[in-house]
Amino acid sequence: MPARKSAPRKARKATKWVYLFNGGRAEGSAKMRELLGGKGAGLAEMTNAGLPVPPGFTITTQACNAYFAKGRTLPTGLWEQIEACLAKVERSTGKRLGDPANPLLVSVRSGAAMSMPGMMDTVLNLGLNDATRDGLAALTGNERFAWDAHRRFLSMFGRIVLDIPGEKFEHRLDEKKRASGARTDADLPPGALRDLVREYREIVKRETKRDFPDDPRAQLRAAIEAVFKSWFGRRAVDYRNTFKIPHDLGTAVSVVTMVFGNMGDGSGTGVAFTRDPNTGEKTLYGEYLLNAQGEDVVAGIRTPDKISTLKARLPAVYKQFEAIAKRLEKHYRDAQDLEFTIERGTLYMLQTRSAKRTAAAAVKMATDMVAERLITKEEAIGRVDPAQVVQLLLPHFDPAAVKRARAEGRYLAKGLNAAPGGATGRAVFDANRAAELRGLDLAVVLVRPETSPDDFHGMVAATGILTARGGSTSHAAVVARGLGLPCVSGCEALTIDLERRQMRVGDTAIREGDPISIDGTTGEVFAGEIPTVPARFREMADLRALLGWADRVRRLGTWANADTPEECALARELGAEGVGLARTEHMFRQANRLPIVQDMILADTLEGRKAALAKLLPIQQGDFREMLRAMDGLPVIIRLIDPPLHEFLREFADVHVELAVARAKGEKVSGDDRRVRLAHRLKQLHEDNPMLGLRGCRLLLVYPEVLEMQVRAILGAAADVAERGGRPKPEIMMPLVAVMGEMDRLEAEVRRVAKEVEAERGRKIPFHFGTMIEIPRAALIADQIAAKAEFFSFGTNDLTQTTLGISRDDAQKSFLTRYVEQQVIPDDPFHVLDREGVGALITMAVEKGRTARPNLKVGICGEHGGDPSSIAFCDAAGLDYVSASAYRVPVARLAAAQAALKSAQGDR
Amino acid sequence: MPARKSAPRKARKATKWVYLFNGGRAEGSAKMRELLGGKGAGLAEMTNAGLPVPPGFTITTQACNAYFAKGRTLPTGLWEQIEACLAKVERSTGKRLGDPANPLLVSVRSGAAMSMPGMMDTVLNLGLNDATRDGLAALTGNERFAWDAHRRFLSMFGRIVLDIPGEKFEHRLDEKKRASGARTDADLPPGALRDLVREYREIVKRETKRDFPDDPRAQLRAAIEAVFKSWFGRRAVDYRNTFKIPHDLGTAVSVVTMVFGNMGDGSGTGVAFTRDPNTGEKTLYGEYLLNAQGEDVVAGIRTPDKISTLKARLPAVYKQFEAIAKRLEKHYRDAQDLEFTIERGTLYMLQTRSAKRTAAAAVKMATDMVAERLITKEEAIGRVDPAQVVQLLLPHFDPAAVKRARAEGRYLAKGLNAAPGGATGRAVFDANRAAELRGLDLAVVLVRPETSPDDFHGMVAATGILTARGGSTSHAAVVARGLGLPCVSGCEALTIDLERRQMRVGDTAIREGDPISIDGTTGEVFAGEIPTVPARFREMADLRALLGWADRVRRLGTWANADTPEECALARELGAEGVGLARTEHMFRQANRLPIVQDMILADTLEGRKAALAKLLPIQQGDFREMLRAMDGLPVIIRLIDPPLHEFLREFADVHVELAVARAKGEKVSGDDRRVRLAHRLKQLHEDNPMLGLRGCRLLLVYPEVLEMQVRAILGAAADVAERGGRPKPEIMMPLVAVMGEMDRLEAEVRRVAKEVEAERGRKIPFHFGTMIEIPRAALIADQIAAKAEFFSFGTNDLTQTTLGISRDDAQKSFLTRYVEQQVIPDDPFHVLDREGVGALITMAVEKGRTARPNLKVGICGEHGGDPSSIAFCDAAGLDYVSASAYRVPVARLAAAQAALKSAQGDR
Repeated sequence: MPARKSAPRKARKATKWVYLFNGGRAEGSAKMRELLGGKGAGLAEMTNAGLPVPPGFTITTQACNAYFAKGRTLPTGLWEQIEACLAKVERSTGKRLGDPANPLLVSVRSGAAMSMPGMMDTVLNLGLNDATRDGLAALTGNERFAWDAHRRFLSMFGRIVLDIPGEKFEHRLDEKKRASGARTDADLPPGALRDLVREYREIVKRETKRDFPDDPRAQLRAAIEAVFKSWFGRRAVDYRNTFKIPHDLGTAVSVVTMVFGNMGDGSGTGVAFTRDPNTGEKTLYGEYLLNAQGEDVVAGIRTPDKISTLKARLPAVYKQFEAIAKRLEKHYRDAQDLEFTIERGTLYMLQTRSAKRTAAAAVKMATDMVAERLITKEEAIGRVDPAQVVQLLLPHFDPAAVKRARAEGRYLAKGLNAAPGGATGRAVFDANRAAELRGLDLAVVLVRPETSPDDFHGMVAATGILTARGGSTSHAAVVARGLGLPCVSGCEALTIDLERRQMRVGDTAIREGDPISIDGTTGEVFAGEIPTVPARFREMADLRALLGWADRVRRLGTWANADTPEECALARELGAEGVGLARTEHMFRQANRLPIVQDMILADTLEGRKAALAKLLPIQQGDFREMLRAMDGLPVIIRLIDPPLHEFLREFADVHVELAVARAKGEKVSGDDRRVRLAHRLKQLHEDNPMLGLRGCRLLLVYPEVLEMQVRAILGAAADVAERGGRPKPEIMMPLVAVMGEMDRLEAEVRRVAKEVEAERGRKIPFHFGTMIEIPRAALIADQIAAKAEFFSFGTNDLTQTTLGISRDDAQKSFLTRYVEQQVIPDDPFHVLDREGVGALITMAVEKGRTARPNLKVGICGEHGGDPSSIAFCDAAGLDYVSASAYRVPVARLAAAQAALKSAQGDR
Repeated sequence: MPARKSAPRKARKATKWVYLFNGGRAEGSAKMRELLGGKGAGLAEMTNAGLPVPPGFTITTQACNAYFAKGRTLPTGLWEQIEACLAKVERSTGKRLGDPANPLLVSVRSGAAMSMPGMMDTVLNLGLNDATRDGLAALTGNERFAWDAHRRFLSMFGRIVLDIPGEKFEHRLDEKKRASGARTDADLPPGALRDLVREYREIVKRETKRDFPDDPRAQLRAAIEAVFKSWFGRRAVDYRNTFKIPHDLGTAVSVVTMVFGNMGDGSGTGVAFTRDPNTGEKTLYGEYLLNAQGEDVVAGIRTPDKISTLKARLPAVYKQFEAIAKRLEKHYRDAQDLEFTIERGTLYMLQTRSAKRTAAAAVKMATDMVAERLITKEEAIGRVDPAQVVQLLLPHFDPAAVKRARAEGRYLAKGLNAAPGGATGRAVFDANRAAELRGLDLAVVLVRPETSPDDFHGMVAATGILTARGGSTSHAAVVARGLGLPCVSGCEALTIDLERRQMRVGDTAIREGDPISIDGTTGEVFAGEIPTVPARFREMADLRALLGWADRVRRLGTWANADTPEECALARELGAEGVGLARTEHMFRQANRLPIVQDMILADTLEGRKAALAKLLPIQQGDFREMLRAMDGLPVIIRLIDPPLHEFLREFADVHVELAVARAKGEKVSGDDRRVRLAHRLKQLHEDNPMLGLRGCRLLLVYPEVLEMQVRAILGAAADVAERGGRPKPEIMMPLVAVMGEMDRLEAEVRRVAKEVEAERGRKIPFHFGTMIEIPRAALIADQIAAKAEFFSFGTNDLTQTTLGISRDDAQKSFLTRYVEQQVIPDDPFHVLDREGVGALITMAVEKGRTARPNLKVGICGEHGGDPSSIAFCDAAGLDYVSASAYRVPVARLAAAQAALKSAQGDR
């Protein structure tokens, strides 16, 4: 600061700290959200729109920041501006603060630019003391109302401004209700209210060692400062930290003339949405209470009435409110969430803000509003949170049935809502049994302590997955999301006894075959069945329309990760423009293939391996044929085998223990025993860090016969499809490439086999050759790699693991969850792409790759391909497409469109 | 090539393919090594220097390349130039090729720019046929000599040019020797030689279906083409691949007038070094045979005589040779390896080249030559291969004793020479026993199938390490090099029976306690003791002088990795300017600490952990105190705990098997059983990929009490040292940092504890705070990290693992060795720093780091810190220092100086 250099300006224009809204004119507007907070901006906008808003003024967020900058003292000029505004409000209402003859009472409301629960909220009825209370009683002719307002004010101010624990006041209130036999506050006799006023004063004196401040101006000043201070209150700070809201925004304070909903049955207060936030239907939705103040609605002491019933009770008011709601929606061009109060037949609007809504409602509102010409298609695209869309596509529980189940005591426990949707079926405790029962056409929920890749066939067979351990990026969660299956993970209340094939929650035991239901959207687990409602994408006209608009806007391609023909078909229906990742090893794990794969691994000789591979070849070729057919005309990227071999032998992991036990029991174990061979081979294959070991293309170079079989299967399948008139577009992808020596050899080998197959089939078989970029070194030498690779696919799961040095499988249970909770890192990097690290490598690789090969096709096929914020990054990084699990393709379509719109805005 | 655009030049100057050396004048020189090969350049240089070189000419490497470029035909003009040179040689010698009256015979020698054993070598006596043979006989008056030359030529030409297996000729030769009772070739009667000539002709006819080519020009042409072709012979190609020599260098061919060492006792042939290549002593060293041709010396049929004996036998020749040797050394300013032939009293020089030498010789020669003012100190620095220097510093076997052991049949097997030096001691098969016996002052060699970090205390106690498995970067090898212990790894001939505590090699059994000896320089293993000769750095005046010169030249600091006060002292003696890495966990593994560490890990509560840590604190503080004292005045970088906790529980890894066996045997195992607790904790701690798991600073953030203890121990130790007048320079280093959230918290915590300790001790305790850069993401955000870190230390072991996605522990046994063998990657990246990947990240991090903090101190502390080529990279990348194990500090001093000299040259 150049303080010493330039003389302070003498006649500096005073900062404007306070904005008036009064008599149909407001100094602020909806655009001044940052300065006036959401509430203040809404009040100003409504005032200017001629809506009935009680007069008042808003103290800016800037004033709040200045308050802290000056060591918690009001900034110069603030109080004077408040007084000036107050005078204007007094003039227009004819009331005066502290005037017993016609007292002005105000509410003091906090309001930051973004809604922050956990902040101090509102002090009502400010301005009351014994004199003004009596004045109010005289003026309204309603003594009880005046005493009620006074006791309310004392407890609210005591709690919020003076920091006295609320239960001290409530305790006395409860005593009075008990003593007078009153069911609700409204039933309290006036004498009881009078006693409460006295007793509340005593509480304040005892707790603060001072008398309650009866000077209304002192009250106002203290309330404003209390709102300021609440900005750095513990809950508010924690909340901002959790949701990454900057701490320097500050809160605004709105001071609003009190209007009273508790002045008899012609008065009331309520909240309403301009459209149904659950369904999106265009109808007023909300509730109200007659003869009540706002806090009564929130407290839930009396059950509020549906807003539609107001029509019969106060028809004129209802009609006026309906018109205002319509007007506000049109004004804001979005569904609104409104607060209102009716004082003796007169309607006052106290708040308007954008309405929160479910995914279904968001889609319907957006498309309806386009039809109503309220918003453009581009705006509609921006109105739906892509992350929510996936919920629409999964089968979900009938809400009424859930309510019933809860009433029947069938609720068992709550875990993590790892993959959305509802699933109901018989509990089974191992993958084989799941596959078995599925064969009998029974719906099953696979229940495991945690899942591993060996459970895949059971997971495919299940309608839902429940695990006792593992976070929302555990194997179970990731695979379930991939399969579009509901999953509840980490449900630690479960005790699973695999030997007895049962699980317990408290006293309840669920045996194998007993029906259970899991809600992957909420994380809840129930005993018994709950009927689900399947999602029918075909019938979701609104969503399809919205996605259609998105398709016209987006630049990024949206592809799918799919491992089976069924997944391909589903992906295509959901709008996939290609398959970005087909994992051949998932096919290896199916029941009729695994033994062959195991034979191959256990073979001691090349001949032995080749014999097993010969059996696998027609099976793989058949799989590929069906997939290429399902995606006819669209590219299908098939990745050659990736995981380390011991993953296919997981079922035998404990064979050394078995052997030790057998020997301990005196069994003679010969060297030829299969268990001995298995134990030996497992020991050979054991790696301390398999993730960094013999897998991916390393495996293909050590066992080139596997590469040959897979390339033959892919190109043979393509030839099959082409021979029947199809248009197969196979692309062959190498996993885990890190050095050019690998690329050189892999490419040569693939092209050699391709030539052989083409000669055998007597036709040209067009295909593309490319590679995953999933090792940092590959990104660093991407220019070299692009000389051989026709496409890159960023495997962001592995790339995240190596770039951050974090094992996805392990980190969840040890430190990653803690890291996210304690904000050591902003997000789980396996969920939201780490832009600074992984993102930097991607950007570098794209740039280098395109330098070497300008038409290089670049995509992403990790989990991140389905995460909206990661998709936005992919768009900015210039990728050609994102690939995610089938159910996430619509998410990607929408997110890609939003990214395109945003970057177009940025370009303008 | 702009062939179409410009008309071909008509009168293009013909390429010069052949360089003459004849009559004291040569067209070539020593500088034309690339064009004329080492041999041709040497012959030319010697000719020009006026030395007695038989006339001849050299065909260039360019001609060789042109030969292949034209589909294996001689390039235009080559033969004409050969003819022209031949004519000049004929003119100066008075002999003519194929002239029976005075036949010119020549040798045809291959010679690339770099020496390549496995290439075709030399054809002698070319030009002989029946007529010239008879002429030679007449001319020399020595018929036997002529027939001997002829049969030699036929078999040599047959073998080398005509590709006939040599044993076919040798077989006949042996028959003749047997039949005539001749002991050596020289004893064969002339009749037998005559028969051989006939029989050799028959062999050629049978094998090639053609008569032997008797036309001397056809012989010459065929021999030249054979030398060309040998460039792409299998052995030559393999050799170049192994040693990374480009394939486009080509070989030159020298055609030299024959001189004959086999013309009686006034003739002879030999090789000699101008200085002793073993010791470096300034004395002629070599051997010769009278009445022999070069091949006889190589074949070893007669034992050659020491060069010194030539003085008595042919004093004039010896004197001349001595003078020539001196002159050549002076001329080349380096020790030479010479070939010579004496023909009837006349000395001829046939080759001169730089002499290969041992490390000791290299050092002595270099320093002697500086004293002799033959070379500068800078040149002396360049004369010693840094990688060899480490050999000088380790104890090594007395060569005479090794010879004796071999004669006594005590040689057992050969493994990999994993860490140099000789060690002798009692074989022990586990680490505890090693420590035990060491306590009794017995020397032990630790023998293990392979070692793990749990063996560290046994490794420290041992004088040498022998493993049956594991490569030269296995745990055993790396730790042994770190400790300066000899190590033979991967000695697969051993069968180790841990239960019986013995090992077998073939029929020999070695029991625990039996003495064995291992030679880590050769990889050999012997039964029984072999006395070693300790290295005494203090007494190595030459080496110390050389390193002193290196210190004045180098820019890079040379620090040491050291974990104990003893290592610190050693490192300092060897020239370390600081400790770049002290691994605190190595202290945790010592016998008196491990149980406490295990208690800490097994503790269920914070209190339990703190109790264990309280016991560790004084022990660690004591360690640090001694280390800081040993390095008084020099920086000591102490890295806080790095490995995952389960590494400290390795001895219990099989407790679950133990439990299963106990239960199978019917034992009742209670839940309180320590084994059950251990098994439970191990299961909790288990990670699929511990390298990417809960370790390093992650551990410190999850268990901040560990960080607190370690920081207290370090700063407490510094205060202890300072209080006694020392100058401690502690630096506290964080391992495995990947994100800024970690840095922020770690720094705050370290500074908080530091303030506490300073308050408690009542003194300021200066220290530096810094971090390892060993995760790619850390390199990518190095600018942010440098805002908090005062120094970076590249942990290139881990950085290599994550950047390449290769686990060091596993990759050796699975694919890395194969990758290096098959040149998928040029070098083992854990040995030689991967410049394209890891190097790119280092360069980026240094640049970013220095941008944020210009005085950032940057070093490297991985294995690479002791590798000369990696050190050159560190110099170029602008690092401040390299840190390696103590014994590698001299290596680093020399390598750093060489790098500085090289970059200064580059700058010029």
